[in-house]
Parts: sequence; C-alpha cells; structure tokens
Amino acid sequence: MNWPRSFSRRPTLVRRQTSFDANATIEELREQIQQFWVGFGPQIKGVDVQPVLISAIRGEWVVPESAAGRRVILYFHGGGFIAGSPETHRPLVSRLAHAASARALVPQYRLSPEFPFPAALRDAADAYRWLLTQGITPNNIIFAGDGSGGGLAMATLLALRNAGLPLPAATIAFSPWADMTLSGWSMLKNRPTDDAVSWELLATCARHYLKGASPADPFASPIYGDFRGLPPMMIHAGSLEVLRDDASRIGERAAAANVNVNVEVYEGMPHLFQGLPELSESKVSITRAAAFIKARTPEVMMRRAAQ
Amino acid sequence: MNWPRSFSRRPTLVRRQTSFDANATIEELREQIQQFWVGFGPQIKGVDVQPVLISAIRGEWVVPESAAGRRVILYFHGGGFIAGSPETHRPLVSRLAHAASARALVPQYRLSPEFPFPAALRDAADAYRWLLTQGITPNNIIFAGDGSGGGLAMATLLALRNAGLPLPAATIAFSPWADMTLSGWSMLKNRPTDDAVSWELLATCARHYLKGASPADPFASPIYGDFRGLPPMMIHAGSLEVLRDDASRIGERAAAANVNVNVEVYEGMPHLFQGLPELSESKVSITRAAAFIKARTPEVMMRRAAQ
Repeated sequence: MNWPRSFSRRPTLVRRQTSFDANATIEELREQIQQFWVGFGPQIKGVDVQPVLISAIRGEWVVPESAAGRRVILYFHGGGFIAGSPETHRPLVSRLAHAASARALVPQYRLSPEFPFPAALRDAADAYRWLLTQGITPNNIIFAGDGSGGGLAMATLLALRNAGLPLPAATIAFSPWADMTLSGWSMLKNRPTDDAVSWELLATCARHYLKGASPADPFASPIYGDFRGLPPMMIHAGSLEVLRDDASRIGERAAAANVNVNVEVYEGMPHLFQGLPELSESKVSITRAAAFIKARTPEVMMRRAAQ
Repeated sequence: MNWPRSFSRRPTLVRRQTSFDANATIEELREQIQQFWVGFGPQIKGVDVQPVLISAIRGEWVVPESAAGRRVILYFHGGGFIAGSPETHRPLVSRLAHAASARALVPQYRLSPEFPFPAALRDAADAYRWLLTQGITPNNIIFAGDGSGGGLAMATLLALRNAGLPLPAATIAFSPWADMTLSGWSMLKNRPTDDAVSWELLATCARHYLKGASPADPFASPIYGDFRGLPPMMIHAGSLEVLRDDASRIGERAAAANVNVNVEVYEGMPHLFQGLPELSESKVSITRAAAFIKARTPEVMMRRAAQ
C-alpha cells in the first residue's frame, strides 16, 4: 500500500485498534478524538469568524471573503456525537466555505453522553429553522457534515421532510457515519487500514449517543430510513476507512428512492482526508464539493448578475 | 482471572480476535466453527439417535433412556447460522434431554449464505408445526437452543405468536445470540476474555445470514421484538463472553413484557460452557435447565402417575 507522504504528519485518533481502552472516561475519549483534528492544519486567511446564538444553542458564522449573496452552508461537525465543536472544525469549514463562495453556520449541537439522542437531531433541525427565520430561503441552504455530522445531516433531512418543512437545496457529506449498527462490511474489511476510526471507538460513541435507543432507528442511523423526497446529495469517503460502506449505503438508499446522489470513494484515502489540505485528493474533494454547492444554489449567481 | 483447569483442554474457535481472517471462505469459516464443538466431549450412553424427516428438512430424534411420556425438547443448534448440525450438538443435546427426561428433536434448519434469513426461521417454525401434527401438544414442547439457535428460538416464538399459533410451554437458551447489530456493551468489554466468539466472527455470520436484511429486524434480532405473550424462559450465559449482554437484554425485553424470565450469568464462564461436561458450572446449568423443563411440563408426570 502506498500511503501519501503527508500521512506521516497525520496524527492518529487511536494508534491501533487493539490499544482501544474500553474503560476510558468520557474526558479521555474526547481528548483522544480531539487529537485527530489537530492535523486539520492552520486556519486559512481572509475568513471572518463570528459567534452567534442559534435559538438556544451557540454556534459560529464562518464568512470567507469570497462569500457571495445568501448562499449558506449549514455545517454539522463530526466527533462521534461525543466530541468536536465549531472550533475544532474551523479550518476545514473555512476551506469548504471559501471554495464554495458561501457563508457557513456551524451549530454547537449538544453532545452525548450528557445529552443523548435525539438532542443533536433536535438542535440540528432547530438550527435550520433558525436560518429560515433569518430570511435565508431553503434553496440557498446546503447541508454539510463530516463523520457523525454527515449522518446527522441525513437524519435531519428525514426529520424535516416528515415534518413537512421545505428542504435545503442539497447535502454534502464527508466520510459520513450513518449506521449505528456498524454493519457495513468495510467495518471489518478496512480494520487494518483505518488508522483513525475503529469498530471499538464507534461502538463506544454509539453507546453514549443512543443510551438504550435502537441502533437501527432511522433518526440515529439514516441508512434505515426512507430517502424519498430528499434533495440531491454528494458523498465523499476514503477507500481505506471502516466507514466506507456507510457512504456507499447512503448512495444505495438514495438511489432506491430516486434521489439524485453522487458517491465518490477516493482510492487510498483515509477517514476525512479533506482535513489534510496538502493532499491533492483533498483539494479535488473540496473543489468538487464546492462546485456541487454552487451548481445547486444558482439563484445567488443570478441575483448578483442582475445587480 | 482463574480459568478452570479444564479450559486448557478446550479448543478455541478463533485463537485471537486479531487473527480473524476477513477473507476466509465459507468452508474455512465452517471448519473453524466446527472445531469449537469437538470439545463437547463424547456422546453419553443410553441415548438412541434416529434420523427423521421434518416436513421438507432433515433432523434427528435424540431419545435418552430416561425420556418420559410426551415431553419434547425442540432444540435449535448454534453455529452463527452458517455452521453446525444435529451431529455437532448431539453430546450437548443428549445430556440436556437425559437430565430433563425428555426426547429432543433437532432440526437441520437451512444455513447461510446458501439459504439466508429468513430460511432458518421458516424451518424452525415448520419443525414446531410438524411436531403438532405428530400429536405432540404445545404444553409438552420446550424450545431450547444455544448461540444463534437461542436467538432463533426467540425469533420463532415471535413468529408463532404473530401467526396466532399456540406457543410451547417454555424456552431455554444457552449463550444466545439475539442481536445482529452487535450492540451489547459486552461485545467490547468482554473482547479480551472471550476465546470463542468475537465481534469479527459475528459480523461475518450476520453478513452471511442477513444478506442485506436489516440487522434490527426483530425476526433476526429478537431483542428488538415485543415479547408480550411469550411463554416462560430461562437464559444462561457466561460472564466472560461477548454475548453476555444478549442474555441480559433478552431478560430486559421479557421482563418489560411481563414474561416470566430467569437470566443466569455464570461467573468466570465462557461461551456455551455447557459444552464442557466436566465443569461443575456446566452440571449446575444443565441440572437447572432440566428442572425448569420438568416444572414447565408437569402434565407428563401426572399422566405417568395415572398409568
């Protein structure tokens, strides 16, 4: 296997699956997961970050100089529902927002085990409704997320659709985790090649998040949901990661429901390789995601042309 | 940890979890699993074994000299739905049947991946219906099973109840596997102490059995089912095994549905320790299961007393 040279600089979340400590405290787990994002690299320049109160939760606006018109990315950060924050994901969100010429809103949804399922889902749906109250129209909103945030984006779409609300224009997910039952075949097949995520880590996160709820509840594991009526989606994953099949199964569920879907598995890439800005695959992924976002929110372009 | 001395003679199914070969063929997997039952010890004496055709499938009657009246154990063998047979489980079934003064019928239900879910469930339900056509009344029938056979017994009860059929008198399960989502906490906590079963092995079996069906389908994973109206059940598991929490969660589901249930976790015991006849815990478990069977099929005793 040829690992990209830059991998040697990449911190690992859990050095080896066998070293996973099933007795780690939640603080220790968060510290471990936190280390993963240190490798996301420095914040890019020309991006304004503003704290914001989104209904009852905090969050932040990430506004690159390139931000045009009303296009908004509602970004759900990853962290297995137990870790992560707008701050940890600021470099990644900034690069995506900059490439897409969009503002990004990053809610600090409540984390488990203190606030288990469906707290994160409620906060995510609330953040979307809050955007609507700010005068942003659904056709200018793109959902995006990584890891558990990618699964949360899908679950939120299911909840919004069921509630009869207008849906956002499209969804982007990087290495989404969309199955709390951990039943993807890559969970086993890619064990030796995933240096960031393991079955043990996900099982622990799922336990904290679900607190007894069914791991096959579609609002926790959207691959068990019905995707009918959802907006177009683009999913990127790495071929080496244990979550690879979550991406492909989202694709299957979407296709089965006649949802416009595009799943791209990047050969030789690990979990959330978009966090490593120097990788050429990372640049390709961000560029393609940005092009998808722009193509799905054309009103903004027209509005500017008309000015 | 003090392992019983006899453990050194016990063959291991997968020597170490880390040595699990995700690329093993189904034949290699079956051979591995088969090795586990070699340790079940020699067949006891005084037991007559007769092949039988049960509707469309084969099976065998296991008839100890002690068999009294019409009491019948319908026994579902384990093997992760991909391995096992009446032959592999004959020593264990013989000891249980002998202790319970009962005949045992052991159907050779169809295995995966050749015949995936719900083939095994259909064969199990058919075997029960066939028993009824032979003039055996439900109150003389006890379901029993180990591992996947224990989960199959539970799933079959759900299916029979939903079909409105009369239910057997009781159910016994040894180290049952009742959750294809593998979400029990013991799956992670008992990884270091389970020398027979691993998450990897179960994930592989589940993949072969489900072939795309939902791992949370109650007929595949009865812990997601509603246990209302089920007959009394007794569950035995070892404290060291990854499936320990399948036993405890069956107990919780049963108790929540007001089903008479008795879960016994044997301290320091591994998966299906009843297969090791020389262990004192094994004798206790079989003796208690037999007493439970006798207590739940008292008609036979009365019938004999009246003769």
